[in-house]
Amino acid sequence: MATAELTDAKMKTFEELESAVRSYSRGWPTIFQKAKGYKMWDTDGIEYIDFFAGAGTLNYGHNDQTMQEKVIEYIRNDGIIHSLDMGTNPRKEFLERFKEVILTPRELDYKVMFPGPTGTNTVESALKIARKVTGRDSVISFTNAFHGMTIGSLSVTGNSFKRHGAGVPLHHSVSMPFDDYVEDQDTIAYLERFLEDSGSGVALPAAIILETVQGEGGINAARMEWLKKIETLCKRWDILLIIDDVQAGNGRTGTFFSFEPAGINPDIVCLSKSIGGFGLPMAITLIKPEYDKHWGPGEHNGTFRGNNLAFIAATEALSNWETDDFALAVQEKAAFLSKNVEMIIDKYPELKGTPRGRGLMQGIAIDVDGLADDICAEAFNRGLIVETSGPNDEVIKFLPPLIIDIEGLEKGLGILEDSIKHVLAK
Amino acid sequence: MATAELTDAKMKTFEELESAVRSYSRGWPTIFQKAKGYKMWDTDGIEYIDFFAGAGTLNYGHNDQTMQEKVIEYIRNDGIIHSLDMGTNPRKEFLERFKEVILTPRELDYKVMFPGPTGTNTVESALKIARKVTGRDSVISFTNAFHGMTIGSLSVTGNSFKRHGAGVPLHHSVSMPFDDYVEDQDTIAYLERFLEDSGSGVALPAAIILETVQGEGGINAARMEWLKKIETLCKRWDILLIIDDVQAGNGRTGTFFSFEPAGINPDIVCLSKSIGGFGLPMAITLIKPEYDKHWGPGEHNGTFRGNNLAFIAATEALSNWETDDFALAVQEKAAFLSKNVEMIIDKYPELKGTPRGRGLMQGIAIDVDGLADDICAEAFNRGLIVETSGPNDEVIKFLPPLIIDIEGLEKGLGILEDSIKHVLAK
Amino acid sequence: MATAELTDAKMKTFEELESAVRSYSRGWPTIFQKAKGYKMWDTDGIEYIDFFAGAGTLNYGHNDQTMQEKVIEYIRNDGIIHSLDMGTNPRKEFLERFKEVILTPRELDYKVMFPGPTGTNTVESALKIARKVTGRDSVISFTNAFHGMTIGSLSVTGNSFKRHGAGVPLHHSVSMPFDDYVEDQDTIAYLERFLEDSGSGVALPAAIILETVQGEGGINAARMEWLKKIETLCKRWDILLIIDDVQAGNGRTGTFFSFEPAGINPDIVCLSKSIGGFGLPMAITLIKPEYDKHWGPGEHNGTFRGNNLAFIAATEALSNWETDDFALAVQEKAAFLSKNVEMIIDKYPELKGTPRGRGLMQGIAIDVDGLADDICAEAFNRGLIVETSGPNDEVIKFLPPLIIDIEGLEKGLGILEDSIKHVLAK
Amino acid sequence: MATAELTDAKMKTFEELESAVRSYSRGWPTIFQKAKGYKMWDTDGIEYIDFFAGAGTLNYGHNDQTMQEKVIEYIRNDGIIHSLDMGTNPRKEFLERFKEVILTPRELDYKVMFPGPTGTNTVESALKIARKVTGRDSVISFTNAFHGMTIGSLSVTGNSFKRHGAGVPLHHSVSMPFDDYVEDQDTIAYLERFLEDSGSGVALPAAIILETVQGEGGINAARMEWLKKIETLCKRWDILLIIDDVQAGNGRTGTFFSFEPAGINPDIVCLSKSIGGFGLPMAITLIKPEYDKHWGPGEHNGTFRGNNLAFIAATEALSNWETDDFALAVQEKAAFLSKNVEMIIDKYPELKGTPRGRGLMQGIAIDVDGLADDICAEAFNRGLIVETSGPNDEVIKFLPPLIIDIEGLEKGLGILEDSIKHVLAK
Repeated sequence: MATAELTDAKMKTFEELESAVRSYSRGWPTIFQKAKGYKMWDTDGIEYIDFFAGAGTLNYGHNDQTMQEKVIEYIRNDGIIHSLDMGTNPRKEFLERFKEVILTPRELDYKVMFPGPTGTNTVESALKIARKVTGRDSVISFTNAFHGMTIGSLSVTGNSFKRHGAGVPLHHSVSMPFDDYVEDQDTIAYLERFLEDSGSGVALPAAIILETVQGEGGINAARMEWLKKIETLCKRWDILLIIDDVQAGNGRTGTFFSFEPAGINPDIVCLSKSIGGFGLPMAITLIKPEYDKHWGPGEHNGTFRGNNLAFIAATEALSNWETDDFALAVQEKAAFLSKNVEMIIDKYPELKGTPRGRGLMQGIAIDVDGLADDICAEAFNRGLIVETSGPNDEVIKFLPPLIIDIEGLEKGLGILEDSIKHVLAK
Repeated sequence: MATAELTDAKMKTFEELESAVRSYSRGWPTIFQKAKGYKMWDTDGIEYIDFFAGAGTLNYGHNDQTMQEKVIEYIRNDGIIHSLDMGTNPRKEFLERFKEVILTPRELDYKVMFPGPTGTNTVESALKIARKVTGRDSVISFTNAFHGMTIGSLSVTGNSFKRHGAGVPLHHSVSMPFDDYVEDQDTIAYLERFLEDSGSGVALPAAIILETVQGEGGINAARMEWLKKIETLCKRWDILLIIDDVQAGNGRTGTFFSFEPAGINPDIVCLSKSIGGFGLPMAITLIKPEYDKHWGPGEHNGTFRGNNLAFIAATEALSNWETDDFALAVQEKAAFLSKNVEMIIDKYPELKGTPRGRGLMQGIAIDVDGLADDICAEAFNRGLIVETSGPNDEVIKFLPPLIIDIEGLEKGLGILEDSIKHVLAK
Repeated sequence: MATAELTDAKMKTFEELESAVRSYSRGWPTIFQKAKGYKMWDTDGIEYIDFFAGAGTLNYGHNDQTMQEKVIEYIRNDGIIHSLDMGTNPRKEFLERFKEVILTPRELDYKVMFPGPTGTNTVESALKIARKVTGRDSVISFTNAFHGMTIGSLSVTGNSFKRHGAGVPLHHSVSMPFDDYVEDQDTIAYLERFLEDSGSGVALPAAIILETVQGEGGINAARMEWLKKIETLCKRWDILLIIDDVQAGNGRTGTFFSFEPAGINPDIVCLSKSIGGFGLPMAITLIKPEYDKHWGPGEHNGTFRGNNLAFIAATEALSNWETDDFALAVQEKAAFLSKNVEMIIDKYPELKGTPRGRGLMQGIAIDVDGLADDICAEAFNRGLIVETSGPNDEVIKFLPPLIIDIEGLEKGLGILEDSIKHVLAK
Repeated sequence: MATAELTDAKMKTFEELESAVRSYSRGWPTIFQKAKGYKMWDTDGIEYIDFFAGAGTLNYGHNDQTMQEKVIEYIRNDGIIHSLDMGTNPRKEFLERFKEVILTPRELDYKVMFPGPTGTNTVESALKIARKVTGRDSVISFTNAFHGMTIGSLSVTGNSFKRHGAGVPLHHSVSMPFDDYVEDQDTIAYLERFLEDSGSGVALPAAIILETVQGEGGINAARMEWLKKIETLCKRWDILLIIDDVQAGNGRTGTFFSFEPAGINPDIVCLSKSIGGFGLPMAITLIKPEYDKHWGPGEHNGTFRGNNLAFIAATEALSNWETDDFALAVQEKAAFLSKNVEMIIDKYPELKGTPRGRGLMQGIAIDVDGLADDICAEAFNRGLIVETSGPNDEVIKFLPPLIIDIEGLEKGLGILEDSIKHVLAK
């Protein structure tokens, strides 16, 4: 059989039985079997370097051994697996550990809400409590934001294809320009003007929600200065500041929370993806106590908000944050990645490339239609898992597991460069 | 320390660190540690009979041994844990097994969508595709429906406390009376009149969504005849019929799908909760192929739609459906439960009780304010996990694991009866 | 030229220059020139009996002589014509006269708001103040209601063609079944059940809005008993009761307000159409003082809310209500009309007719597709202006000026009967 | 009695019987009786110079003698007063005259829709047809726009006090920055970026609606170049361009349509206020034929869309546009007004004044809280009718009848200057 035929045969089940909505199995048409650290293998035994990390869910790499052992031990002991929000030891230990290792050292004071185990669920809960606390209905979000696919989260998401999928107009949200959105224009000045002018047509919102680095929107990193100004605006008008750190949090940018370098203190923080340790569904919403107390019991809930296996892995993952070593290592690798990104951009001017992002959340925006997609497709054929992002899939997005080493980064970047050469040569 | 003080000490972490939104840890103030079959134990070693089953998530009981073994083996082999919608063996095997064991024998033809691992997510995906296919925006749902807590699902949910939590008006939905909603009135005639009258103010909807037995809404079971009429209305006006079988499906009512006895063929079916085998987050949306093809790749997605541990347990759970034995056993136990429910109602006229539900999804509606809550609280103290449902928490809701045996049912019902006596004696 | 050609020539300007949205000039393709009392004449000198009264705007007939004289005199004296809501004598006199002749004798206490000179405008203002006072967003309206064409009013209107014209989904409203909507079912029981059940999915509304006789919706007259029950529901749940008396008010049903026989006391009443005396644009909203005081100055306004010519004619029209004579005369003519309607229905069983309405707001619902339209078209050819209403234009609607005499009614009914005979003979 | 007591006595009827929503009778607490040209007299015989013109409704002055005579004659002849959209001579003549005098000479091709006789009604009709034609739901409007008070128009209006009055969130609209909204920033670049970026969160709208000079919003005049760019954007993305010329049209800025100097060709134009000649309620919507044909008969309607007295005055008013003389005269007076505005600003630096507007639609923005209001109140006491506009009532707004002469302008400006001196001296 030819390669295409072999691939078709391999993917037959998905083609025949699974919904047309599936996406990753189209771009990476193989069956993945094993994974460890920053490597994955498919059923044909082919090895892949992972520059994707489960869309930011595997910051601690695949199949961390201690997490595996603890999860296995728990199952073996008939530990309670599913518990909604009943009391269990893994839930208790996670809460205590999170306070001790993450909140207290950063002088942050939040109540921890378990809203259901997905990113969109933490966002929906954040929007609800912000609206409830303020009695206002609208929320300001930003261009190219991505906050999730359920109607509440989707209403604050920028992507028109995703929004259109709702099948209904999306309300109670206003889209404002993210940092550096319009050339040479100060987007804070716009936002400020809209807020201060009672004739602007934009109501005082319940909240402003943002990602400090927009992952799906094209790895757009806001400047710390911009974030500080946003916080100042929020304080001035009593608007709640929600940081959606689902993708950029959990150390992705070099600190546990992505907003730490800005020195801001958000009212609500959304975490999911890597919070669950090694890929198990989990999400939490951090809410300042003075706002949290407005919740009624069960006012937002969800069946799977008690995933004990995830709590166990999550608690283990927090060990990485006991000292600064983990963060410093990420920052070092980030610097290495930056250097290489710049090098590639310089070396291949045909890409019309621009560097994007910060920490281990970087990208190359490629100003040639379709080129980023072609490069990523070629990289897959050569053993590198890397995807595009941005409104036109124009950004090659580097999201390796944080535990990757320099050798792994070099290997991955090597494959990427070969792919670029190959595609440009066509 | 007094009991209350001991309880406070035990629950201190949750009180101090967790959000005020928590609910079950308030009603059942202990820390659960172990669970097997239909029994749970807390950290004090106290045993509980489980008439709750993780709100319908543990139909196959706690910690099924084969599921445990298969999951442990997969983790041990560094199987890929988190995969979004990439191809993996557990996903492939689940798809094939689901077709073979569930769809084919029932002559049902659906594509399987993995929408993110929660009930609300499958509902949101169902609403989206229905709106997309029909080009219409509104959806008809029913009084006392519960479909989820994210804004799309919440808009078709009846409970005013939950709706109010949205903090925004909920749109694009119309609430119609469920079967037997108003005494002596035919709710189908009512619905039909609204649909056929172009001046009714109710637009032709994209879909009608319903639970055949409303779990959260008070264990209201629609008659099969009513369901058939709904299907007929849908066909007549080209409205998509969505069955939300998140709680009533997976064998809960005595057949895999709750709608089987009605002989209807819904356009979309939502499954979650027990589909994941032993409590791991998972959800699927079943969509008729002619509608499914309208999805664009990634038009609805979600990070955790590739929970491989759940796929493994889910595939194992499907073995129960290879023959009719499992279903027949559920039906037998359901009959036993019904008989006992009637007996209790007769024996304690002070309850002003009415039987509700079908299969192993039954309840007693108690027409005395606060009484159902008191009974459930007393039952917990005596070692039975059972909760209330209904708009005023007026229904004691029996949702034991389907694998429970007669002995277990007897034990649980015994505790319940003791609790009733105790509460009535006060 | 043939008749059709002559007609085309006559209507050429409208066909060529006016929008396709025009409607009456299509059904009655002529140019009207003169009008007096209950008669109209076109430019060809053809006389028409008016059973339409400007869709209920000309209750006092065409060109009442005293109104004409007073209006002319005012213009002659350079009286201020357009004054928004500045103080003017005609405004002052109308206010005083309305209190004296209408409100005081009926022991009604309302503030008078001038919301802009159209029916939809009074409805929009009523909805606003109800929402403002209660802090609730939704409003309950009824099947086949017609309240206006601007988005707020349209959201509480039933007709699907009109609603669809909005081009956007219409929100913040719930449609409930009007009196006698579903055969043999008690629509109050439905509404009550939805309101009392906190799980119904229908939020406590700001207001219930209704027409006591639905004009556009098919001349559906609610029973007095039903209206009383609605008022009781409103009181029980602190819902504001809005009566839209735009078409049924101003004496149309035999009393100044259509709701007088029910003995109810609405919180808000909407008046327009005939309030302006002889066809000049005017509308008022009557609001109980305790609710009215919640308005901020200018919170609802409109350029043409100071149409002084209308105020003059309106004040003159109120003279009709100084004694009971006018009302009694209407009631007598209504009885005469009823008798004839029944006679026609009996005499022409092919019509499958049902009588509708009350007062001088009556109709014959004809259960044969297209027949009502054919009869009205034929009637026009024979010199009678009468239109259809109802969701399928199935009701012949009798709305003669209230000042018509028995001779006029007989003449009109004679033409109608001839038209019926002619159409049935085809 | 003291003056305040006398005033109270005079305004007693309004205070006691009229709604709290009234506004102008508060600021100008007197009873107006007579009016001619640019002068008004109250019942005490006090004369006022009118720099308000009925909020732009009396461009042709009060009680134009020819209009008076024609209207009186028509009434005398028992001309049909109220006709919905039936054919009548005044309607026919208006249509023909409007085409001949206005459309044809400007090479504009529009169908004329009569949507109900108010500004908000023409806007509602414009939004409907734009949504219908494009199948899109949202409309872009601008900061400080004012389009009307019914829910559809209000949703594209900027003022937060007015919006808040809706009592419901306002949907299907996006507010974009008007020309010169943010200092030194190009608002076209901003708008363009949102439209071209598929991730912007702003959907492709059905229409862009704007006033070329924002009347209520603070007499903000867009530059012609900005208007041209808006038209270009609309063409590029197939967005309908709606010009709301309700206040700025009918010659107010020196040409019949306010947009003529920009050389643009809007898809839809809204006219009301002065279109009715001397203050009678009337509105029209001009729609390009290719879009107009999408209307169904009666898809938007309204009882008072056939105000024949208004048609007669309107037709007479069009005579002013047979030659250029009227327009040239307005332009001359506008230049005189501009000069004086600048003079005042220079002479009274305490005002911190900025000139606003163009044509006879000018203003002085005063950057001192409350000062503009104080000046206008004083001006009233001295015999000048002039109001403020802008989100904080910070702009003194000059809107004299267009037929005013230089003497009238001088007189009015003299009173204004005296008022300024008086207020500044306090």
